[in-house]
Order: sequence, then C-alpha cells, then structure tokens
Amino acid sequence: MFFTNSFGIYGGVAGLFDYGPPGCAVKANVLSFWRQHFVVNDDLLEVDCPCLTPEAVLRASGHVEKFTDLMVRDVKEGHCFRADHVLKDFVKDALEKDPRMPAAKRDDYTRTLASLDDFSVEELGAKIKEYGIRAPDTKNDLSDPFPFNLMFGTPIGPTGLLQGYLRPETAQGIFVNFNELLYYNGGKLPFGAAQIGQAFRNEIAPRQGLLRVREFTLAEIEFFVDPADKSHPKFASVADLEFFLYPRAEQMSLKDPVKVRLGHAVAQKVINNETLGYYIGRTYLFLTALGINKNRLRFRQHLANEMAHYAADCWDAEIECSYGWIECVGLADRSAYDLKAHSTASKSNLVASRDLPEPVVVEEFAAVPNRKEIGVAFKANQKLVLEALQELNNEEALEMQKKLESDGEAPLHICNADKTFTIKKGMVTFNKQVTKKSKEKFTPSVIEPSFGIGRIIYCLFEHCFDTRGGVDGQLNVFRFPPLVAPVKCTVFPLVQNPKLDGIARAISAKLREAGIGNKIDTTGRSIGRRYARTDEIGVPFAITVDSEDGVTVRDRDSKDQIRVPLEEVVDLIADMSAGKRSWKEVQGVYPAHVAAKASDETDE
Amino acid sequence: MFFTNSFGIYGGVAGLFDYGPPGCAVKANVLSFWRQHFVVNDDLLEVDCPCLTPEAVLRASGHVEKFTDLMVRDVKEGHCFRADHVLKDFVKDALEKDPRMPAAKRDDYTRTLASLDDFSVEELGAKIKEYGIRAPDTKNDLSDPFPFNLMFGTPIGPTGLLQGYLRPETAQGIFVNFNELLYYNGGKLPFGAAQIGQAFRNEIAPRQGLLRVREFTLAEIEFFVDPADKSHPKFASVADLEFFLYPRAEQMSLKDPVKVRLGHAVAQKVINNETLGYYIGRTYLFLTALGINKNRLRFRQHLANEMAHYAADCWDAEIECSYGWIECVGLADRSAYDLKAHSTASKSNLVASRDLPEPVVVEEFAAVPNRKEIGVAFKANQKLVLEALQELNNEEALEMQKKLESDGEAPLHICNADKTFTIKKGMVTFNKQVTKKSKEKFTPSVIEPSFGIGRIIYCLFEHCFDTRGGVDGQLNVFRFPPLVAPVKCTVFPLVQNPKLDGIARAISAKLREAGIGNKIDTTGRSIGRRYARTDEIGVPFAITVDSEDGVTVRDRDSKDQIRVPLEEVVDLIADMSAGKRSWKEVQGVYPAHVAAKASDETDE
Repeated sequence: MFFTNSFGIYGGVAGLFDYGPPGCAVKANVLSFWRQHFVVNDDLLEVDCPCLTPEAVLRASGHVEKFTDLMVRDVKEGHCFRADHVLKDFVKDALEKDPRMPAAKRDDYTRTLASLDDFSVEELGAKIKEYGIRAPDTKNDLSDPFPFNLMFGTPIGPTGLLQGYLRPETAQGIFVNFNELLYYNGGKLPFGAAQIGQAFRNEIAPRQGLLRVREFTLAEIEFFVDPADKSHPKFASVADLEFFLYPRAEQMSLKDPVKVRLGHAVAQKVINNETLGYYIGRTYLFLTALGINKNRLRFRQHLANEMAHYAADCWDAEIECSYGWIECVGLADRSAYDLKAHSTASKSNLVASRDLPEPVVVEEFAAVPNRKEIGVAFKANQKLVLEALQELNNEEALEMQKKLESDGEAPLHICNADKTFTIKKGMVTFNKQVTKKSKEKFTPSVIEPSFGIGRIIYCLFEHCFDTRGGVDGQLNVFRFPPLVAPVKCTVFPLVQNPKLDGIARAISAKLREAGIGNKIDTTGRSIGRRYARTDEIGVPFAITVDSEDGVTVRDRDSKDQIRVPLEEVVDLIADMSAGKRSWKEVQGVYPAHVAAKASDETDE
Repeated sequence: MFFTNSFGIYGGVAGLFDYGPPGCAVKANVLSFWRQHFVVNDDLLEVDCPCLTPEAVLRASGHVEKFTDLMVRDVKEGHCFRADHVLKDFVKDALEKDPRMPAAKRDDYTRTLASLDDFSVEELGAKIKEYGIRAPDTKNDLSDPFPFNLMFGTPIGPTGLLQGYLRPETAQGIFVNFNELLYYNGGKLPFGAAQIGQAFRNEIAPRQGLLRVREFTLAEIEFFVDPADKSHPKFASVADLEFFLYPRAEQMSLKDPVKVRLGHAVAQKVINNETLGYYIGRTYLFLTALGINKNRLRFRQHLANEMAHYAADCWDAEIECSYGWIECVGLADRSAYDLKAHSTASKSNLVASRDLPEPVVVEEFAAVPNRKEIGVAFKANQKLVLEALQELNNEEALEMQKKLESDGEAPLHICNADKTFTIKKGMVTFNKQVTKKSKEKFTPSVIEPSFGIGRIIYCLFEHCFDTRGGVDGQLNVFRFPPLVAPVKCTVFPLVQNPKLDGIARAISAKLREAGIGNKIDTTGRSIGRRYARTDEIGVPFAITVDSEDGVTVRDRDSKDQIRVPLEEVVDLIADMSAGKRSWKEVQGVYPAHVAAKASDETDE
C-alpha cells in the first residue's frame, strides 16, 4: 500500500492517487529532509499560502491566458484528447506497425515526431487533418485543436462574482509577499523563500501513474538576487561535485550527457551563474541522499525554443525510470519577469535597493500638499490623500500640475484603497527638489528550483526496488536509505517467550518515544520469514531479542549482524536512522554475530 | 510576520491567510509533534489523499445535500450574509443599545438569542421579517433565508461532466480506503488511521481572523473499533489526568465546567467509552505540551440536539481566547454511520469480522455455477461472472432463482465493473449449503478526533504572548515552549571581534547541521537589545559567545544564565529543543553566570 488510485470503491478518478501508510511515511521523510537540506541549511524564509487563488494574481502571472494544452474533441461522443498525444500516438504506431512504409512518408512522419513541441495550433490541426486521424477509441471525427486551460476554477464567496483558481504552482504566493519577505530579511539581498504545498492541474488525459497527476505536492524555492551579481556565497561548497550534465550543445549535436565538475561548468558559462549552479549542486546532493541512483540522474538544459522568452537559463533534473527520463526538478533563472508582472498588475513596487558606487544628485519634481486645505476637503481621508500626493513620481506630479493649470482640478486615484479623489488648485503646489541619492531601486532576478515531490518519490521507489534469492524463491527488497525508509526498525523476540516478548515491547516503546517508527512482530514465525517481510517494505534495521542482556541487530543490505548491549540499542538505531552513524562505522564498534547469520541464511 | 492576509497587494481575499516564516515554522513544529504524539506513539496508519473529491463520495457522506449554511441576500446589491449572524447581531445590538426596552420585548429577544441554533429555515425567516431586519450596510430589504452549500465545486477533467469538490474535511479519504487499511493491519481491530491535509469551506462571510477561514489544515484520526467493545488498551495511561470537562448536565443547569479525573468520567459514563476518553486525554496532553494554558482549556460535551442523530457522544476541546471559547478539536463517536453510508453508496462491503463465542451452523442458499456453459457464453468475462455468482448473498440468490424459473433468464449486475450480464437457465443451479461459521461480519464504529490546526495555532499565539518591563518601556515576549518555538536559539558574539564572530558562525552552522533553526546576530548592538528582539519572536535560548572556550546560555523565561563549555553547547541546545532536558535540570549541571545576568538586566 505505497500508493493506490483514489476513491477506488467508487471506480477511481484518473490522475488522483492516495499514499498508503508506508508511502505516506516516505513522503513525510522526503519533505522533512527537504526542509533540513534547503530551508534550515540556507536560512530560507518558508511561507505557507492558500491553494485558492483569486483571478487577478493568476492573470498577472500569465496563467489565465497561457496555461493551456491543446485539445481535440470526439465530435459525436464529446471525449477529449490532448492534440499532441493523438498525433504522436498515431505517428509512432504507424512507424512501428508498417515496416514497408515508403521512405518519403517515413521521413515525413519522423520529422513530425521531432517537431511536435514546436507546432502551433494551426500546424497541429493541419497535420491531424492531413493524416486523417480519428478518435482513438470510437474512430469518430475529431474537432480542430483548441486551447484548454489546465487550471481548476471555482468561485470564491457566496455571490459567485470573485473568480478563483486552484494554484497550478506555489510560486505566486511567494512573489506577492516579496515586499514583506524583503522587510523580514532586513531589506537585504540575496535571500530565498520556500514553500511546500499542493498544486493542481486539470490534465486532459492523465497517464503514467504517479508521474502525471491532477493534484500534487510541490516544494519550491524562489531565490532573489541582484541581477548585476548572481554569485552565491556558498558556491565553493558544491564546486567540486561531478555529475551528468546534458547541455544544449550536446543535445543539438545528438551527443550523450557529459560528466563534468560543477565549478567548471559555471566557470565556462555552460551554467549561467553561480546561484543557479549552487542549486543544481544542492539538488544533486538532495536526490542522491534520498537514494536516487547517480548514474540514472542528469541535468538537462532547456533548448532555446523550450524556454520562456524572459528566462536566462533553465535546467531540469531528469531521473530515468521505466517511463524514460522524467523531469523531476526544474531549475530556472526567470530573471525579473514575475516581480515585474506583479508590480505592474498590482501597482505595488516589488523592488529592492542597492548602494550606488557613489552618491548621485537627482532633480525631482515633487508635490507639496497644502495640509490645511486637504484636511478641510477630505476630513477622514486626509491622511490617505497626503500620502498619495507625496508618493507621486516625477511624471505623475508633472501630469497633475498640467491638469490643475488647464482644468483647475485633477483626479487622484489611490490603488490600494480603490478610491479616486478630486484635487483642486490650491491644495497642492509643485517644487523641484534636488536630493543626493546613495541608493538605487531595482527589480531582483529570481532563481527558481521547483521540486515535483510525487515524481521524485515514484522514481525513488523504482531505484530502491531490488530482488534477491531466498528459499521461497525470489524475494523483494526496497533498499531505502535509513533517511527515507518508512519504518526504521523491526523488533522480534527470537522465540515466543514472555520474557523476550516483554523486552521487545519495551525496546519498541522506547524507539517510539525517540520518534522512531518501528514494527514489532511477536508471531514466532521463522526469523528468516520475518526478515523477508521487513525487507519487502524496506526496513533498514532489525533487532532480534535473543537474550535478556543483549540483542542482535541486522542490516538489511549486507545481511550482516552485530551484538549490541540492551541499553545501547535505542541510541544506536536512533543515530543510524538519522544518518549520524553508518553501518560500517558501527560494525567496527560491536562484535559480529556470525553463527546467527549462517542460520538466518539457511532459513531464508 | 506570523501570519498575514493572503494576496495583500491585490487587496486580499476574506478568509484566506498566509503563514510567514515564523508562523510557518510554528505550524511545521505543531504538525511534526502531532505526528509523533498520535501517529508514531499509537502506530496509526497515516494516509495522504487528494483535496479534489468526486461528487459520488460527498453525496454518500451527506455533504452535497446537507453541508449548508442559511444565507440572506440584499435584494438590490446582491451582497450575502449568514442569516443567523444577521439576526444575532441585530438582537445583540438592540439589547445592548436600548436599556429601556420593555420587559416583554427583552424577554423575546433573549429567547431568540438562546434558540438561534435550533431555528429552522422558516423560523429564521419569520424572525427576520418580524423584527424588520434589513441589510446591515445598505439597509435594503433582505431575501428569505435559503441554504448555501459551503463546498467549493469544480469539474474534474476536460469534458466538465465529472463534478468534483474540494474536500470539506479529510475523513472521507480514510473511510473509502477502509478495506485496504484493514487488510494492511492484518484484518485486526481496533486500529486507527490518520491524515493531515488541507480542507476548504466557502464561508459566506468569514470573520474572526484565523478562526473562520476558507482554507485550513486539518489533522484527523479515524479510530475503528468493534461497537461491542470500545475499551482501549492504553486507557490506563491517561486515566489519572485531571482537567476541565463541561458535561451536558452542567451546561443545561447553567453550572460551571468541572475539574474531574478522566478515569472517573469514563467510569461514570459521563464520557461514553474508553476509546473516546483515551483520545480526550491524549488531546489534553497534546494541547498543553504545545503551550496551551490548561486553565483556559475545557472539553465541552455536545447537547443532545447539537449532535448528529447517529452520533453516540461528542466533545469539543474549546480554548479560550479574545474571541471567547473556540472549538479547536472535535472528538466524536460517530458510530457506524460513515462506513455504512459508503457501503451502501459504493456497493462495497466496508466491514470487519470477529470471532463468535462459539461456532454456529448456518444454512445458506448459494449459486453453483455451471462453469462450462458460462465459459462458452461469456468468454473473456467468464471469471468476472463466476466470481459474482459465487458472491451472491442469500437473498440475491433466491431472487435470481425465482427470476430464472419465471422468465428463463435473469440480469447479473457487477458494480465494480459497471456491467450487466444476462444469466440463462442452465448456467447456474442453486443449493442449500449448511456451513459452520466461527466468525461474523459487522460494521465497525469510528471514534473521530479532528484537529483544526490553524485555530490551535492562533490560540497558542494568544496564550504564549506576554509582556514585561524593560528600559525601553514594555517589551513583548512569546513564551513558546522549545517544542514549538519557530527559532530554537540565537547566537551572539558578545562584542564585534573576528575571533568571537568566527566561533559564533561555527556554532550556528553546527546547530543547523543538527536540524536546529537558529539566528545569528553579529550587529554588535547591546546584548539587552538583542535579547529583546529574540524574545519578541519567542526564541527560548540565546548563546552569547564571550570567550574562546566557553559560552553563556540564557533562558528566555527566567532570564537566568549558565556557563557552558564550547564543545558541549550544541548537544545541550539540541536536547533542550527536543524536550529531552529541561532548563531546571541543566541549571543543576552547569554553573550560573550571575555577573552577566545583572548587567543584562540593567541593560534591558
């Protein structure tokens, strides 16, 4: 019960999954390690924002307009399909099933397959028509492709007038809080914010199990930097890592990924900057610590046409599993796009400031309010109006001055309060002010590492799954590192006996007190069989209570065993579970238990 | 930045809140302790199900039909109000503002106020008419009250045909998985399942800040028991706890809550059963460990008319805060209602089985399929049909026999596959079988503790908030226990000096490695001022680096200080943060730092 289709007794819903108890424990461990590895280690500011998001936010981010997939509809039955999938499946199928296809046709099909991601809506429609593709199940005609927005919409509040959506990513919650986060950080850059939470995409036709789902957990970081200085103070700590990169040039020339030193890749500008490189390195460390096989992990750079126009550089951490290479983490330098979009849409300045190399003298045209007149005219609103006048920038002040001279009055719109006041001549005068400025404002760039937690967990299951021989035939083993194992330890009395049972229960209770999830098995089945059951759910350590003053501890992977005094075993398991001590280290401290190992082996 | 209104730069949305960095850390600590205190400690089976839920599930649970509040609408402007709130506010306001109200009117108003929760939709409408109540803001006429469903609806998938809702609670995800969870637990009762996750309610008019919101985190337990035996194996561990209960009888006779021993309350049947009592006790321990003041916490029993008709007993953990007594945890014995509702709606048997005291002989009328004929008739579906025939119960078999005799054929509907097959005479014969049964099936009862995490956190903020005098006037202190404190420790060099700075940085890094969130402050401001800042966000411990081989550790609450050797300080803070050692214990081990304390005090 690692995971299962949701609402199974009602027939299930495509693209929705439940994590059962061991899956849920793995997920909690992965998230808790993510928090330790990124949030605590780098002092990131973690926030927790709602899934429900009003339209204004997602309109500013571009999701309302552009977060779409192209869809075709079975004109009779109304079934919907992703247009690119329909075309891809048709062409792939034809290429596989018709070996005697004429060379020209084969070329055309192959070219279509390679350019799928590049097709416009018209090109896609033309190809579907040209090939005479029909609905895969009914063979009915298909509609022309049309965009389908992947966000789940739901009105907020009882009137139905405030349109809301379920967020398709957690990032927007961080961007809209930028000013408060910057203030919380003492006004200083660089800093990073993080968020873990659910996100939703109304996929047209979910497939590939846990890999393409309609609701999923994201863990995202938005790291804000000065665009003029994208160095990272801790880059040196990851510069010597070596792993597989798949840069644009290698992809274009159909070469293989290359194993390179991270420091070298950044120095050569293969990776755009140190901060992006730092997070690529930290992501590598994170994934391999979880148990992802480093030889089935690569960082693939986005091709030029694959990247958003505003992005400076993008890399995906791709993990190989039975479905191929799967994008599990996206790492993007999104430049200043998001903060600028929200600044414009919300009329709030989402900016930071930096010291100028030397102070500059600036001439500013500013409004000087006549406090008395304004007080009389606006009473309760006078403070609001005074502040708004003082905040007018050069151009706005100039415009108001013109209006007042020509019309005798001018409107003053206050966005935050959504009110407009009429300013009359005499309420304000204008002044040229000469000031010395030692700081300038700018919109920070953002580097965004975004982790698809469900996809990582699915790949982890595949990479940790293994089999080994036993007397009962092939046995399944999940080789989870202690860090992510859903249950850290099992406790068995060697034989059924009230004294050993009591000791086993006491150890189990103490482990629980120390926060270590464990299972106790007092069934008296053969030890070999009990080990096999715990291997199946990936328990790294087993304690066998075989005497009143000491126990045997067995390591899942090596099947080696050691003798440990009763009073030391809880601390030992706690240390090994937390990764503070390794099995190798521990084997040097405690004596091996060779005899029992032999009997265990024959028993298996 | 503990919490803030969401999407503030766009004007915000009522009932949606963000947790900023310290709030988010408190929330993560509360959830992690919840997991330890309930899931790990009692070996609960934790699951993680989607928020998106198809209509069938929420129709079965009753939410589609009954999860409503009564609403009235401003007939001109369309603004919506909760009908009971409009009536309540009007009556309360009138009683407060008109001291010379005639006695008869005062009586009527007081009676209305007391019976608000009991009013039907018609009674509520009649009262609003009778009192001539108008829209609170515009004074326009109000519509008659009508029910408004509080679930957010959104279609799932591209066709728009599968209606979905955002779950209003996490419990249903557990109920629909009951059979798999029972199997995972080896078929044995009692067992508990748990889930932490988001839930959503489209409140008509959210108010009271974090207490009534449209999206919130729930942590729920569904503990399944045999209705004939609701004892709990660990009840003795909580039986001696004494705290405030507010039983039905005390409420009806307008008496105060009573402080009683939990064991006594269960023995006297004031609390219905041991399992419900066990969870009331564990909830008391959970809340007080977080820092909830035990004198501002009570468990209030639902009145008879307040409880659902199927419930056996319900208690709310109520916490007193500035808004009054707030329901933060609901603890209900929901009998077999939920599992029965889903059994009926999904046609899956959500049942467990128990040993009979002695085996009984049962006569069963069963279908005996003719395998050959069925194989010929149904080919690929033969296995499905055979299994369905063998699973027919007494009545279904009898009905089919009758139909076959009268019509020569009978329909066989298979729910899981959603298919109907036609069975003909000769494909099946019927037999009376006499079997000995040693087990019987039954629908378990469920005891449900349901924790509103946001409400608990809000009350915790209030209970931990305190002020104390200082040289700069009144200082704010958050007296969070180390367990929930967002930052466990601050590190200061006593004076600005590269050596002390270096030591401070090294300690801070080591604390982070150990998973302990900490802040370092090398500003060189006065120590007293730095302490004041950390008190403000509730940091329990401060390390001042004042020499190269030892540091001073200060406790927030007592302001006492001790001298600790450099190499021991990280372990000490780790132990105190995890609650393994208390400040009192530690004061017995390390020497006090009296001189510095005095200077600290004057400095403050």
